[in-house]
Amino acid sequence: MIIAINASAKECKNAKIPEKLVDEFSLIESYFNWGKGSSNLVNLGIGDDCAVINIDANYQLVTSVDTLIEGVHFPSNTSASDIAYKSLAVNLSDLAAMGAHAKYFTLALTLPDINKQWLGQFSVSLKSLADEFDIALVGGDTTKGTLSITINVTGVVENNKALLRSSAQVGDLIFVSNTIGNAAYAWKQLQNNQVPPKHIIDQFNRPKPQLLLGQQLSTIANACIDISDGLEQDLTHILKRSKVGASINLDDIPLTNEVKTYIKKTNDWCLALAGGDDYELCFTVPVKNMDLLKALQNKHNITLTQIGIINKSMTLTKIGSFDKQCCSYQHF
Amino acid sequence: MIIAINASAKECKNAKIPEKLVDEFSLIESYFNWGKGSSNLVNLGIGDDCAVINIDANYQLVTSVDTLIEGVHFPSNTSASDIAYKSLAVNLSDLAAMGAHAKYFTLALTLPDINKQWLGQFSVSLKSLADEFDIALVGGDTTKGTLSITINVTGVVENNKALLRSSAQVGDLIFVSNTIGNAAYAWKQLQNNQVPPKHIIDQFNRPKPQLLLGQQLSTIANACIDISDGLEQDLTHILKRSKVGASINLDDIPLTNEVKTYIKKTNDWCLALAGGDDYELCFTVPVKNMDLLKALQNKHNITLTQIGIINKSMTLTKIGSFDKQCCSYQHF
Repeated sequence: MIIAINASAKECKNAKIPEKLVDEFSLIESYFNWGKGSSNLVNLGIGDDCAVINIDANYQLVTSVDTLIEGVHFPSNTSASDIAYKSLAVNLSDLAAMGAHAKYFTLALTLPDINKQWLGQFSVSLKSLADEFDIALVGGDTTKGTLSITINVTGVVENNKALLRSSAQVGDLIFVSNTIGNAAYAWKQLQNNQVPPKHIIDQFNRPKPQLLLGQQLSTIANACIDISDGLEQDLTHILKRSKVGASINLDDIPLTNEVKTYIKKTNDWCLALAGGDDYELCFTVPVKNMDLLKALQNKHNITLTQIGIINKSMTLTKIGSFDKQCCSYQHF
Repeated sequence: MIIAINASAKECKNAKIPEKLVDEFSLIESYFNWGKGSSNLVNLGIGDDCAVINIDANYQLVTSVDTLIEGVHFPSNTSASDIAYKSLAVNLSDLAAMGAHAKYFTLALTLPDINKQWLGQFSVSLKSLADEFDIALVGGDTTKGTLSITINVTGVVENNKALLRSSAQVGDLIFVSNTIGNAAYAWKQLQNNQVPPKHIIDQFNRPKPQLLLGQQLSTIANACIDISDGLEQDLTHILKRSKVGASINLDDIPLTNEVKTYIKKTNDWCLALAGGDDYELCFTVPVKNMDLLKALQNKHNITLTQIGIINKSMTLTKIGSFDKQCCSYQHF
């Protein structure tokens, strides 16, 4: 779609069909037409009005959309490579939280100008992560404006096997994967012109989508969410949807040494409760499935930490020795 | 997903789960959770990490994404209602060009601030168009920034019945629906602080997606595209994809009286050739299907005008009495 018709009108009477236009069409063609990938779901990818996707009646599709904006979701000096990684990773994380297998995605890219080096790095990094999780890019749109990336991911789950927020049961144990608070700690350090340790900044720029974990949890857990907005807010989504309450023990929240030290010094529990952006999974497991969960943990060598229990209180109670608590950050 | 962890931290020790937060979550809940619509495809809509979509093996999915940005794709003083309409309509137009039936969409909305009146008008207008074409909103994301709307639409076509750009055959007759150039003419008038006639500005703000026409064409036409970037560029996409050429007669291009008068006065054929944004369909039909096309035209009382013919030249030749031609506007 276009508007400003006189912006770059050119003489081209009976012209040969142009081989290469530096326009939206060729941008997508040049940088993002990677082919169909290995999935036989993609019948027709980039290049027509729409992509065409084959479907299979034994599965349901799961789909989600997320936008990342420069200066809001990543600092202005973030590399094209990290921006690409994170843009796809945060969307894959939503699929992980559903227990889904990633299948295809579309990319809407708003750019202030054409920087071929930037685009090249963005494209290579995006493709690398897409290949890692075997997800095909099937469509795109580029527009001019403030740097912003919107990705819409689609995956599949076996019929009625999607891992929902609404299925937590009273008595379920609440777990989180790995450690949380690292991304928020990295952001805080960056804001103070400090350089976070590599494993901390990596968690901020390149959060690992927990797709394999989500898939394995789909027969073990009752409810699941990815921690994007902060543990407190995201767990609250589970509680509200499931019409239950919970108590969690702050001392049990898994933290890296850096975050532990920071909180000990500042008592700023916001970092762990409201930081978000780590894209770990928070999920609830019935006691009867604990053996299965332990087996999963051992098989995949992943740290899963129990932080609380679901109850019928309809409130979220936080137990632990601290003076100050916080709700999660709100977008507006 | 969040970053700025300290932005609005609140005391909420053992707080009751908040009933209403003015955050991303409740924005989508408040303004855009319209339920599943009538389609039984949507198993789970807004409210979890992803939407869950039922699928049927007799169909393929078609999917496309488009972004509209304030000041680029619509003037800053455009009403929320018109912005919402256009944002969905331009995406539906891509489904129309595939001969698809619209099924579901996601919405990524970037807003400079929360204006409840604006959001209310946007939501009502979006829902009205969604209802008209029976398409369900299944997911959304809101972020803070320059006003921008990204919609990802998904529809279905019967297996292998998608209307592609790549299937034009030598000898096919080339048609466009209704009239073109109106949106570009409206934009030109607005830029010159003139007030376009209502039927002209309507074409600009509220282009009608030609879904019914596209569906009917799927068994009649060989190739199809929607005219978003301008007739010349969009027809060229068909030619390149189909590895054919074409000649079109400028005098046959269907124009409203206003656009005809303007071009007669200025000889500015750019408006009709490169204006775009009308979202009419351009399609090619084999001669043997002309009776079917005429029947369709009569049944649905739609104007379909032959403007040229597909040949094997690999070039686009424009016939007609004019001095100046132009390529289409390029985004960058």
